[in-house]
Amino acid sequence: MSFAAVDIIRAKRDGQVLSDEQIDWVVDAYTKGVVADEQMSALAMAILLRGMTPAEIARWTAAMIASGERLDLSSVTRPTADKHSTGGVGDKITLPLTPLVAACGAAVPQLSGRGLGHTGGTLDKLESIAGWQASISNDAFKRQLQDVGAVICAAGDGLAPADRKLYALRDVTGTVEAIPLIASSIMSKKIAEGTGALVLDVKVGSGAFMKDLTTARELASTMVRLGKDSGVNTIALLTDMNTPLGLAVGNANEVAESVEVLAGGGPADVVELTLALAQEMLAAAGLDADPAKVLESGAAMDTWRRMIQAQGGDPDATLPVARETEVLRAAADGVVTAVDAYGIGVAAWRLGAGRARKEDPVSFGAGVQLKVRPGDRVKAGDVLLELRTDDGSRIAAARADAAAAVTVGEVAPALTPLVLDRIA
Amino acid sequence: MSFAAVDIIRAKRDGQVLSDEQIDWVVDAYTKGVVADEQMSALAMAILLRGMTPAEIARWTAAMIASGERLDLSSVTRPTADKHSTGGVGDKITLPLTPLVAACGAAVPQLSGRGLGHTGGTLDKLESIAGWQASISNDAFKRQLQDVGAVICAAGDGLAPADRKLYALRDVTGTVEAIPLIASSIMSKKIAEGTGALVLDVKVGSGAFMKDLTTARELASTMVRLGKDSGVNTIALLTDMNTPLGLAVGNANEVAESVEVLAGGGPADVVELTLALAQEMLAAAGLDADPAKVLESGAAMDTWRRMIQAQGGDPDATLPVARETEVLRAAADGVVTAVDAYGIGVAAWRLGAGRARKEDPVSFGAGVQLKVRPGDRVKAGDVLLELRTDDGSRIAAARADAAAAVTVGEVAPALTPLVLDRIA
Repeated sequence: MSFAAVDIIRAKRDGQVLSDEQIDWVVDAYTKGVVADEQMSALAMAILLRGMTPAEIARWTAAMIASGERLDLSSVTRPTADKHSTGGVGDKITLPLTPLVAACGAAVPQLSGRGLGHTGGTLDKLESIAGWQASISNDAFKRQLQDVGAVICAAGDGLAPADRKLYALRDVTGTVEAIPLIASSIMSKKIAEGTGALVLDVKVGSGAFMKDLTTARELASTMVRLGKDSGVNTIALLTDMNTPLGLAVGNANEVAESVEVLAGGGPADVVELTLALAQEMLAAAGLDADPAKVLESGAAMDTWRRMIQAQGGDPDATLPVARETEVLRAAADGVVTAVDAYGIGVAAWRLGAGRARKEDPVSFGAGVQLKVRPGDRVKAGDVLLELRTDDGSRIAAARADAAAAVTVGEVAPALTPLVLDRIA
Repeated sequence: MSFAAVDIIRAKRDGQVLSDEQIDWVVDAYTKGVVADEQMSALAMAILLRGMTPAEIARWTAAMIASGERLDLSSVTRPTADKHSTGGVGDKITLPLTPLVAACGAAVPQLSGRGLGHTGGTLDKLESIAGWQASISNDAFKRQLQDVGAVICAAGDGLAPADRKLYALRDVTGTVEAIPLIASSIMSKKIAEGTGALVLDVKVGSGAFMKDLTTARELASTMVRLGKDSGVNTIALLTDMNTPLGLAVGNANEVAESVEVLAGGGPADVVELTLALAQEMLAAAGLDADPAKVLESGAAMDTWRRMIQAQGGDPDATLPVARETEVLRAAADGVVTAVDAYGIGVAAWRLGAGRARKEDPVSFGAGVQLKVRPGDRVKAGDVLLELRTDDGSRIAAARADAAAAVTVGEVAPALTPLVLDRIA
């Protein structure tokens, strides 16, 4: 069936529900270039402002999946379980989590992305390990999934190409913040990737995409429903992102912190969230294992080393170090009342850990290393954090963001839970 | 001042009022290609759904004017008065009106357009006169305005180029129907053209762009305010477009009907609206003349001939005739209850009088010639209308639209006034 793009745009603009045929046609025609960018951006804005019914979102997701290939993981004998985070500051959880869940008996097919803006990307972090390759063939992907159980790699071009094209368009047209488009973007890739179970980590707070719990719940429910309707056993945790995860924000320093967790140490919040997500993934995959014990046993570290080596990386290589470091100190005695995730994320981005445009390189050594967490007592002159960069001219601007992000007061802040809600 | 396009899109998307600086920047940057089509279409959709304040619309209009040149008509010693119609079916009023108002002592700088969709374009109609040229230089334009008093020609590329680019974009992105964008599009060109007085003919009804009186009033008020704020003495008439104007719908047949009016004949509604608009234009320009008497004197016809000749046309040339004609007859005795403007417009368009894409040529002889008007009594077998085309394969589809447009019943319809409201 064929349509005129402008009629579909007008229908959504006027608040109508799009038919299955209209959705199938417009997604396919956009992927093929028959529907122009300027038409799709007008439609995206209409979707953002008018919304979509659950049935429209499901069909849109199916159309995005149908725009490309769908991986067949039936040759993998382990149960498959994946995790997706909506993105946060210091969110390196994929790095310890993937080998941990694999060491518990699952196969974890982590197709990951790169960072844009103030939130980092898993592939950027891993590329700070000498020799490690993000891109592997579908065959190598399946082999490693069976043999090692853990793969973190770049999604191939064949997976939901409609989404890749649409995402780049939304980024420059003010149409990112539409729940139907966010949910279908994430879920089309995860469903096409072929995982049997999926745990969503929906971040909420200043450093997250979703600033409030209500919107985050709506997004989480939409995605859980999309997953289940497509036969993927999906659950979502809503987790706090007002404070960065752990102490390291950047690339190489986040790898180092992840290795600490695999070695049995690391910041308490990173360990807590890693274990909470591992338990959900294992339960969703139908595996009865205790991830805390497996972490303690060193098996997760063994799997990490095998996973890095399988993609050409040297797990023993020295990680890149930034050329310049500057410290930020407390001006007075007191207690740390907040470390704002957004401010720290922006500071790390300014220091070179992130990129402004998707063609830009990242600096592996750049970032922010926190020396305090909310609730810590400090004395005047104590180091609050370290700014790390390869380019000293970047320090002044980053320093302002970082200084504003850490507040020291007199009254210790109330402790908030890391996991705020669970949606299944 | 410089902005990021995406921040301006987001602001309007979220219902904020754009600042003068944001509007100036985005219109200028779009004209220069710094803001991409896909960004402007998302902004246009946000404007359509979120609206604009009168101050925003005024600034947007000023920015569109500033994107190009502004004509200086100070060398013309007659008072200037122009008319703009929002477009209808059989709306050839510009053709008799322009020479009539000029013959009354005004200078009428009619920069006109071509038809797209079911409404015809003034330039397309005049091009059915052998030799007539739509494009003339600014100097020739001013000279003819002074000497003849009447010019109907194509707007030069230098006038509000931002509008030309934006209009083409809106046409394919479902963002035509936004009052702020319609009003600023029309008024930026009319203000830049340098006229001192302006009468707007805002059409309302099935064959018009505005289907209801409320929306038409809102558009008319917005445009009148924009004109007055820019020193153009502007008034608007709201006129009926549920029925085509006159009996001729097409190109050459509309020229012929216009010449009938100039010769003292022609359909009553075309004469009525021509005189009503002429009176308004003359009053707005401060001229005390009686257009009915001037029409009767033959002076308007003399001006018409001089106007056509000044642009290379031969006013005595035989007009093009379509190759094929088919008649549509009444199936039963009765009274004509309606002749739907939209249906007749679509039929004429299908017959070749209009174009589907702006690159397409029009057929001068094609169109619909009505033989009846609402209220006329007919007998079974009487001719209701003639379909004229150069391409017989177009008749079947046009016949269906035309047949549905003319309804014959038992009770004569109530007569509705042609001029529905006046906004000054």
